[in-house]
Amino acid sequence: MKDIAIGIDIGGTAVKIGLVGKSGLPAEKWSFPTRTEENGRHIIDDISDSINKKISELKDREYNILGAGVGLPGFVDEDGTAHGSVNLGWTEPFNIEEVLSQKLRGLPVRACNDANAAALAEAWMGSARGYKSMMMVTLGTGIGGGIVTGGQILAGAHSCAGEIGHVCVNRDETAPCSCGRAGCLEQYASAPGLRRLIKEGLNTDMGLEEFWEKVRGGDEACTGIAKRFGSYLGYALSMAAMTVDPEIFVIGGGMSHAGQVILPFIREGYEDSVLPVCQNTPIVLAAMGNDAGIIGAAALALGNVRCTDTKI
Amino acid sequence: MKDIAIGIDIGGTAVKIGLVGKSGLPAEKWSFPTRTEENGRHIIDDISDSINKKISELKDREYNILGAGVGLPGFVDEDGTAHGSVNLGWTEPFNIEEVLSQKLRGLPVRACNDANAAALAEAWMGSARGYKSMMMVTLGTGIGGGIVTGGQILAGAHSCAGEIGHVCVNRDETAPCSCGRAGCLEQYASAPGLRRLIKEGLNTDMGLEEFWEKVRGGDEACTGIAKRFGSYLGYALSMAAMTVDPEIFVIGGGMSHAGQVILPFIREGYEDSVLPVCQNTPIVLAAMGNDAGIIGAAALALGNVRCTDTKI
Repeated sequence: MKDIAIGIDIGGTAVKIGLVGKSGLPAEKWSFPTRTEENGRHIIDDISDSINKKISELKDREYNILGAGVGLPGFVDEDGTAHGSVNLGWTEPFNIEEVLSQKLRGLPVRACNDANAAALAEAWMGSARGYKSMMMVTLGTGIGGGIVTGGQILAGAHSCAGEIGHVCVNRDETAPCSCGRAGCLEQYASAPGLRRLIKEGLNTDMGLEEFWEKVRGGDEACTGIAKRFGSYLGYALSMAAMTVDPEIFVIGGGMSHAGQVILPFIREGYEDSVLPVCQNTPIVLAAMGNDAGIIGAAALALGNVRCTDTKI
Repeated sequence: MKDIAIGIDIGGTAVKIGLVGKSGLPAEKWSFPTRTEENGRHIIDDISDSINKKISELKDREYNILGAGVGLPGFVDEDGTAHGSVNLGWTEPFNIEEVLSQKLRGLPVRACNDANAAALAEAWMGSARGYKSMMMVTLGTGIGGGIVTGGQILAGAHSCAGEIGHVCVNRDETAPCSCGRAGCLEQYASAPGLRRLIKEGLNTDMGLEEFWEKVRGGDEACTGIAKRFGSYLGYALSMAAMTVDPEIFVIGGGMSHAGQVILPFIREGYEDSVLPVCQNTPIVLAAMGNDAGIIGAAALALGNVRCTDTKI
């Protein structure tokens, strides 16, 4: 019998599910569209129906299913309560671990925020593999984050640990952030944030792909904007270094697809602000692709992350 | 036989030692001056001589000594290496756990930074007792910090976790900090930092006791300076909330002796910058007095801190 966990990655567009063994590679995976209509009320049933069907098909195969892990775009507290999700249409809090476990005939279920699942995947199988502690920052439409230390996600008292998207990096900012305050990292280093810097700086609606291409080509104006992006992001990482001091930073999310070109700008901003003792902390790109959510969720279920840092 | 640990608090002026049982109260304690001369080369021998003498006197008493913990003003890495200490005159790194253990006839020794020891004491017996995670900030000549989560100090890859004294809180500052950069929290919220704000704002060398007395009395100029102090410190705490998200913040160190008067200013700066979900995190004064260092060091040796927060 091969021990496996079911990894479930609930996104605003698709639900991805995989059977993941202790090797960290999905043995099987499938996906279906996320039905966000009617406040996303069908999502949990769609997931349990799909998994129960798969389990019944597996009958004669040699799998021992240890549990299921779920990553979702929203806060999940330590009791397993999902506190709504704008992307999924969920408005009411409910205990996703209990509800899903019941629908999966008692299978143990663990849930976490999707950025935390991505962090677990990178710690287990990706760029932070072999490191004792790590902080993941996902740069996309918003900015998420996750910290893995002692082989565990550091969740925080309000599931807010690693959420550096709303750290204030510019106390002089007057334009409001989506959160209602101003000067948040998200206003500069998310995809819409960088587009805003570009629009302000160049007075044009340049796409991000074109932008980074110009930076690669040495365009001065674009390089100046990239420096500003890196200055804010590196500054936020420096604050994280002087608070949790991870052994490595991993940059993921859609923005990271621009590739290595983004790293020197982040590094420069980081080194400008951090204590010398943390100056050499690696800042690298995420290595896991589209399966990160599945693999991280499975890691949560397996309790199988190698990232450990317990001794003082 | 009563299980106890030896708690050792090495300060720049005095070494304090105590025998601490699992109740967290020192059964016996004593102290002697720290001999910082000759690069502090006598300090370790003074400690081991003093403890060995005490142990020999205890022979007929009913103590089972489980180990010794040490807190000191300097970085201690996870192998037990103390990386020098300006306050103690130590310039060369050495493994204080191994050296002291040898001189204490093989007694297990654990060492940590003194701010971390203070955090352990508050988590075990002080203001953070019963909380699942906490961050301690010590405001004194410098600013130190310690984070306890999962019943353990979060040390960080470079023993730098919790060291928010050098988080940059003012990117426009031009006056240099002791660390060589500018705008560090220490420049505003340590004792010399606050004195600097007072000097700048009032053009006088007012003592801190007199300053807070005037704030209590409603003096407008002093209240304005207290707001600035609280704004920077609260801002730094907000960044910590969005990185480690502790269940409670504990403010200690010499500056905290001013009492409750400092808290509303810190709270205002904190709430101005933090995500709403973390807005109600308590910010309280440290409860442990002069024995904090001894008790925290003993907690390290006993592995007996109740502060736990392991499940995601």
